[in-house]
Amino acid sequence: MRIDDQRTSRGQGSHDAGSVTGVAFRLFRARGYEATSVDQIARELGVTKAAIYHHLAGKEAILAAGINRAIQALTGVLQEAPALPGAGAPLERFEYILRRTLEIGLEHLDEVTVLLRLRGNTELEREMLDRRRAFDRAVAEVMREAVDAGDLPADTDALLMTRLIMGMNNWLTEWYQPGGALSAAAVIDTVTRFAMAGLTAPGRSDR
Amino acid sequence: MRIDDQRTSRGQGSHDAGSVTGVAFRLFRARGYEATSVDQIARELGVTKAAIYHHLAGKEAILAAGINRAIQALTGVLQEAPALPGAGAPLERFEYILRRTLEIGLEHLDEVTVLLRLRGNTELEREMLDRRRAFDRAVAEVMREAVDAGDLPADTDALLMTRLIMGMNNWLTEWYQPGGALSAAAVIDTVTRFAMAGLTAPGRSDR
Repeated sequence: MRIDDQRTSRGQGSHDAGSVTGVAFRLFRARGYEATSVDQIARELGVTKAAIYHHLAGKEAILAAGINRAIQALTGVLQEAPALPGAGAPLERFEYILRRTLEIGLEHLDEVTVLLRLRGNTELEREMLDRRRAFDRAVAEVMREAVDAGDLPADTDALLMTRLIMGMNNWLTEWYQPGGALSAAAVIDTVTRFAMAGLTAPGRSDR
Repeated sequence: MRIDDQRTSRGQGSHDAGSVTGVAFRLFRARGYEATSVDQIARELGVTKAAIYHHLAGKEAILAAGINRAIQALTGVLQEAPALPGAGAPLERFEYILRRTLEIGLEHLDEVTVLLRLRGNTELEREMLDRRRAFDRAVAEVMREAVDAGDLPADTDALLMTRLIMGMNNWLTEWYQPGGALSAAAVIDTVTRFAMAGLTAPGRSDR
């Protein structure tokens, strides 16, 4: 049976690799990656397992595809014009990266949540975790430039402060409800202001 | 075979309910609760499964015991003298609660980490998550008093700001390494100063 036939016979929408990944990550986020089977993903899409294997080699390939998308979106931020060295003061570049990181976290909520919950149980998961940590270190590097430029207290531990701020962002994935009372824009604005105010406030450092 | 015999024959230390829970939570944290069996806990302790069942009815009872300990430690903070209504300005009480919450998170790192990773897959897990959320709401209430007292901007969303700050704390469990270069005291101090500076900084609110 061809996929198109199957789709028609089940009355389902399209199920290309992108929609398989989308549905799979909704399940991974709700039930956990380990606890979700390709069977359940197929049932949720209303297709056979074979139809899924037509696009993706298996559950780990689905995980890789979705996580790659999330990490590429995150690391892509560092290449955006306002984030580049020389685009502005380092502290402004940091604020830009922070806002965009929050936006991507809320846009790709399922993928980023699953990424953040990876435990490093497989070679693939460890590689993904390494790439996420590399992103944090690159962001910390921009904060370090702001310290060197004298725009943040000299005793600022850039990696620690970046981890604290990213931790606040990361935890959003655990409680933020899209479509709830709080708009994504309001949350992003509140977090960014709080982080920037805290970073630059005189009471924060020993200086 | 009596537990004492077994202990002697294996040359292991004591294994009362407390040490079972301690070892179990080290495994739950490292490998995940679902992925850890009572067999593995028994092997790690060097005792039989029967010796474990002598103290605790099973894996869920172990989970309940450890998580209860963590939640009781957290909620106990709200009953400590400096946290009580009238003990000081609400903002000082909030700062005290924040510091103590951080201390407890790092003291009970395994239990708190496992608590924070619960997905609500069972009735017990949902009850634990409800108690954790009730703690956040109680802390937000103290922040709300600080807003009412005029010590924080009137447009402060106390529940959102509490969740952001607790999220920063919660994320510590994912990367903090006890015994590493950063002492617990230094991390607690940095987080508290950052949070308090951010909360009270003029740039944070619309006011």
